Amino acid sequence: MTQMENARKGRITAEMDYVARKENIDIQKLIKGVASGKIVIPKNINRESSPCGIGKGLSTKINANVGSSSQKEDIDLEVEKALLAVQYGAHAVMDLSTGPALNEVRKKILEVIDVPIGTVPIYEAGVAARSRDGSVIDMDEDDMFRAIENQAREGVDFMTIHSGITMDTVEKLKNSNRLMGIVSRGGAFLAAWIMHNQQENPLYKNYEYLLEIAYEHDVTLSLGDGLRPGCLQDASDIPQIQELIVLGGLVEEGRKVDVQCMVEGPGHVPLDQISANMKIQKTICKEAPFYVLGPIVTDMAPGYDHITSAIGGAWAAFSGADFLCYVTPAEHMAIPGLEDVKEGVIASKIAAQSADVALGLKNAWEDEIKMANARRNFDWEGQFELAFDGEKPRNYRQSCPVEEEDMCSMCGEYCALRLVRED
Amino acid sequence: MTQMENARKGRITAEMDYVARKENIDIQKLIKGVASGKIVIPKNINRESSPCGIGKGLSTKINANVGSSSQKEDIDLEVEKALLAVQYGAHAVMDLSTGPALNEVRKKILEVIDVPIGTVPIYEAGVAARSRDGSVIDMDEDDMFRAIENQAREGVDFMTIHSGITMDTVEKLKNSNRLMGIVSRGGAFLAAWIMHNQQENPLYKNYEYLLEIAYEHDVTLSLGDGLRPGCLQDASDIPQIQELIVLGGLVEEGRKVDVQCMVEGPGHVPLDQISANMKIQKTICKEAPFYVLGPIVTDMAPGYDHITSAIGGAWAAFSGADFLCYVTPAEHMAIPGLEDVKEGVIASKIAAQSADVALGLKNAWEDEIKMANARRNFDWEGQFELAFDGEKPRNYRQSCPVEEEDMCSMCGEYCALRLVRED
Repeated sequence: MTQMENARKGRITAEMDYVARKENIDIQKLIKGVASGKIVIPKNINRESSPCGIGKGLSTKINANVGSSSQKEDIDLEVEKALLAVQYGAHAVMDLSTGPALNEVRKKILEVIDVPIGTVPIYEAGVAARSRDGSVIDMDEDDMFRAIENQAREGVDFMTIHSGITMDTVEKLKNSNRLMGIVSRGGAFLAAWIMHNQQENPLYKNYEYLLEIAYEHDVTLSLGDGLRPGCLQDASDIPQIQELIVLGGLVEEGRKVDVQCMVEGPGHVPLDQISANMKIQKTICKEAPFYVLGPIVTDMAPGYDHITSAIGGAWAAFSGADFLCYVTPAEHMAIPGLEDVKEGVIASKIAAQSADVALGLKNAWEDEIKMANARRNFDWEGQFELAFDGEKPRNYRQSCPVEEEDMCSMCGEYCALRLVRED
Repeated sequence: MTQMENARKGRITAEMDYVARKENIDIQKLIKGVASGKIVIPKNINRESSPCGIGKGLSTKINANVGSSSQKEDIDLEVEKALLAVQYGAHAVMDLSTGPALNEVRKKILEVIDVPIGTVPIYEAGVAARSRDGSVIDMDEDDMFRAIENQAREGVDFMTIHSGITMDTVEKLKNSNRLMGIVSRGGAFLAAWIMHNQQENPLYKNYEYLLEIAYEHDVTLSLGDGLRPGCLQDASDIPQIQELIVLGGLVEEGRKVDVQCMVEGPGHVPLDQISANMKIQKTICKEAPFYVLGPIVTDMAPGYDHITSAIGGAWAAFSGADFLCYVTPAEHMAIPGLEDVKEGVIASKIAAQSADVALGLKNAWEDEIKMANARRNFDWEGQFELAFDGEKPRNYRQSCPVEEEDMCSMCGEYCALRLVRED
């Protein structure tokens, strides 16, 4: 039975209990959310892990992507990245490997990491087809479903499934005047496949079969936005919204058979369009949890896209997004290193916390008040402990030693807090 | 004659002409903005510089703070920071030095830096009083006005003046249940002075005299928010808004005598309160340009406050703020180093550009479209040239060499753009 089916039958699972305690919310509220599909708890029945809840009324969650590419493959490094991401507070990790040993990376991560693990099984299918027949478009339907089923058996908790790329949406894309075309890798696999084979996307055509697999292992479907905009100019256009409408229908299909579903969203979006995007997803997808990548609010800062997406992510989460996919400073340029992963996770945590505070979440406010008290009391160690990353502020403080505890090198003896207190 | 007086008399100054060209807007629109006080052009008559316009309809400007403290004083380093900030795109630089040689730092910066320079003259007065009599509260009225007048003669283009700290606002502060009290250094100088001397703030009492000095040299007054909140819990409270009301009155006084004024704003503000703060400033201060510090949207990330304030700054600028003061990663911890200054400027530029694009500014959109084209065409050098910092993305690309030009190590041969193009 899936979490959703249990919730609908009024059964409290161990996972629901764990999530309700962690979120500090009433278990009945959580059950109601899971039963209605407004909350998902990604937790494959085949793997032990510490789950998290994603959706309405819960704190904003963040995901860190790791994974090899055809240009860089180092299994141990990818595992190390995943561990580091969790250490700094990622609630979930996606393995997006596309290197030749992608199956090994995934297995190792599933073994070592305790939080929900997500994947994009079409990568496995495409990479296998390419190594066998020369190109990803040589995938057949079996390749696709075999990858999904294998990964479901291995214990993957949520999977990005690009069922929204259809002959119709690809046609709409061709007729649009998009500047960047498709920038989703999985989306491109399927769009290229559809264009080459002139056939409907098997993940759309045989969606019912896909739901059967998801149901059997309680895999949460993360319905991918293969047509997300790749630059600000392309945001909120017809292909993007047309795909969203398809995804809205797929959410309803999933809910009919007790399969947990969330929906993925853009991408590159100007700040003024973010809240509209969140609202439209919520209406079209009947309040399914929204998992957004970024959004990146300007393309002018390659090397700093953890910041461009922290801006977009904060506003998105405040406007309804439930799950933020981190973006690292290496985005658009290279596969991220360890330091990039850390920076990406912290930037996402900042975005999530900003939103949670603005939404009035109790846990988020309690942390803010603890931190303000530590600052007021010149309790430096207290600040470092509460901080998302205690090491960096500690290093700053140590880099400019001062004589007194209630002083820092920024304002020195002219500290505002000291001055007013002294008088 | 000040820029405002010229504008009111319909005279186009060289500065207005320069600003209108740079902003790509009609000169008459600019003149109207300057005449009404909705736009300021900080440009002291005693110093040559490349001015910028700040206010309604113009692109969002950013300021970088530099300056020594009592704990760390290195004149050359502060000058180097100022140069670096301008190199990365700061439109203005404030020298906030409080070290013993603060006058030397300022003079050097005024000499070397081509953009508008701002200061907080009360620092000079307080530091002088402390070295003479032992404490900043030993300042007298002459110390305060002497500093202002000296700095105006030297060519300082804009000055933070804490005339909003009054016996009344200090009383309101005492009666509030603020968690962090005062966190503005200049604000604390004057609040401590008022509490100790039980006298009205000379910068408020003798505001007319201050206006005379500002008029004579065309110093733009930046009316300081000494009672800005120092943590999220204190945001938008009575002391803050009471001070804003005082500042609104002072703007009107300034406009009567052709003195350019802008208003400074918070601070630490939850995301959901930012647009209300911008709107209230605009109504109370009759659309005077709004210069905000941050706002920082969570206190949980010391060491990363360039990110917390990029989030707040982007939303603030989209909601009406005209001028963003950068915050560096060292904020709250230590005096920033060169790398911190660079990071702070870039984070602020990201915030400003995000807002300008969302507001539909033509120049901002043109840049985005150029960048999108460079990305689509795998024109790496084009991207690096357009980027706010070309070096960082170039280093990423070089760190993971790939065989082909239309490839990066992130997606390798499975690049979405390549896949769809190939087919």
